[in-house]
Amino acid sequence: MEIRTYLEEKRTVIDEALDRYLPSEGEYPPQIYRAMRYSIFAGGKRLRPILVIAGAEAVGDRKENVLPVACAIELIHTYSLIHDDLPSMDNDDYRRGKASSHKVFGEALAILTGDALLTEAFQLLSNKKNFIDPDPHQLIEIIHEIALSTGHAGMIGGQVVDIDSEGKEVEISTLEYIHTHKTGTMITVSVRTGAKLGGGSSEEIELLTKYGEKIGLAFQVIDDILDAQEGRENREEKGGGDLKKRKITYPAFLGMKRSRKKAAELIGEATSFLKSFGQRAEPLREIARYIKEQEQ
Amino acid sequence: MEIRTYLEEKRTVIDEALDRYLPSEGEYPPQIYRAMRYSIFAGGKRLRPILVIAGAEAVGDRKENVLPVACAIELIHTYSLIHDDLPSMDNDDYRRGKASSHKVFGEALAILTGDALLTEAFQLLSNKKNFIDPDPHQLIEIIHEIALSTGHAGMIGGQVVDIDSEGKEVEISTLEYIHTHKTGTMITVSVRTGAKLGGGSSEEIELLTKYGEKIGLAFQVIDDILDAQEGRENREEKGGGDLKKRKITYPAFLGMKRSRKKAAELIGEATSFLKSFGQRAEPLREIARYIKEQEQ
Repeated sequence: MEIRTYLEEKRTVIDEALDRYLPSEGEYPPQIYRAMRYSIFAGGKRLRPILVIAGAEAVGDRKENVLPVACAIELIHTYSLIHDDLPSMDNDDYRRGKASSHKVFGEALAILTGDALLTEAFQLLSNKKNFIDPDPHQLIEIIHEIALSTGHAGMIGGQVVDIDSEGKEVEISTLEYIHTHKTGTMITVSVRTGAKLGGGSSEEIELLTKYGEKIGLAFQVIDDILDAQEGRENREEKGGGDLKKRKITYPAFLGMKRSRKKAAELIGEATSFLKSFGQRAEPLREIARYIKEQEQ
Repeated sequence: MEIRTYLEEKRTVIDEALDRYLPSEGEYPPQIYRAMRYSIFAGGKRLRPILVIAGAEAVGDRKENVLPVACAIELIHTYSLIHDDLPSMDNDDYRRGKASSHKVFGEALAILTGDALLTEAFQLLSNKKNFIDPDPHQLIEIIHEIALSTGHAGMIGGQVVDIDSEGKEVEISTLEYIHTHKTGTMITVSVRTGAKLGGGSSEEIELLTKYGEKIGLAFQVIDDILDAQEGRENREEKGGGDLKKRKITYPAFLGMKRSRKKAAELIGEATSFLKSFGQRAEPLREIARYIKEQEQ
């Protein structure tokens, strides 16, 4: 399969759904809708929502209720980027080459836009109009899983430790905590909720959870490698720049060679969990390879 | 009935439940749990969660699932205060006489604490362990209603317009928009969700919604009157201080006398919707009177 075509197709489906779900600019007050749409349509790769779709595809054909969940996860991811970029956090003026939310709309509206996207995610997830004949027990379970993995014990916990580690000497275990929580939990919950919506068995969900954990960590190790490769200043301009304030990255701990090896191992382990899924898990396999290729 | 005793009793029940639901300080990372608990236990009156309980009492005896919803609404209220107090928003150093979150924990952690409380509210609402034999359809409906009334078209919308109105000449319709959205939607949804959980009929829910809308606006008119009465500087020290940046208040538009009259009328209208409920709505009647008494 041609992964780039697959990703492009799914990206289009997700973007169209986001456009449908998000409030339109005609509504009041206009500035919040404008700011929500600005960040949502600022060129994201849509990795997380694509993983929801691919997770559902890996276990079966039930895809009818995947889109609202995929989009809710993208709203949460986007809110987290807006808040991470704020002056009191990472102070990033750019995100994917575009001015970050607080640079365009000011700090107050950027904070409120993040809040609104987070709240809108749960609005989407609980709006029955978005679902076809949903199992209400499963829907509550999915809402719960998403809230858990993005809250204080998940994504926010990772960001708290990240902010707290700035300029400090930390252990590699702290770096691993940051990465598994800040990025990993969201990637894992994406594949997991996809598998649940697709009607996966508990064994299938378990295997896809392990796949998610491995690619989540690989994704972050590779991001660190890219930061180190491209050089600090170059990435800062583009609005990358975890290196700006924080020195703790995988290459800083392990060196470049061992970081690359670790990334390759994680990708290998991730795909090993997909064996029993056969052809249906081809997109997930390709996504793992695609993540790996980013650093070459 | 003695309303002060009633409020005190309910406050204790709610505080105990919040203590049970919130993560304890032994967990990692400690700073986020400390900051969440600091703001939650900073002396709130618990008006909104008490309204959830009183709303359920007004329609019947089914109270077993009221507490997680009441507490979730208090978590959302508290997150909104933390974010409102931030330097880029209202820049309030004090809240109810205590240092505000960003003064104690710094701006980054205050933002993340607000995010965590908002996310935790939806975690609470979707955690089946918190409910006894819940109706999953009703639970999803309640989650949806809370998300709607606190999002861009509700509470956040009100705050956006409030921030945007700073130092501007605005119409009284703008002031009313701010108040009905920033404060009113949360107060209304509290009574409404209580009535739903209590098993109220659609007529009962409709009447209690109207009650909620009226006391919500009365609450804010009275808050404006208090601001004007106590004088600007005095309230700023205590961490009131909507007058600090914003000049638009009811007394500024209507004068003190007509503002008082408006508040009294709103309270009268609110209680008029309770007639058919008889004795069971006595707490809601007393709460309306209690709100009115604050300005005397």
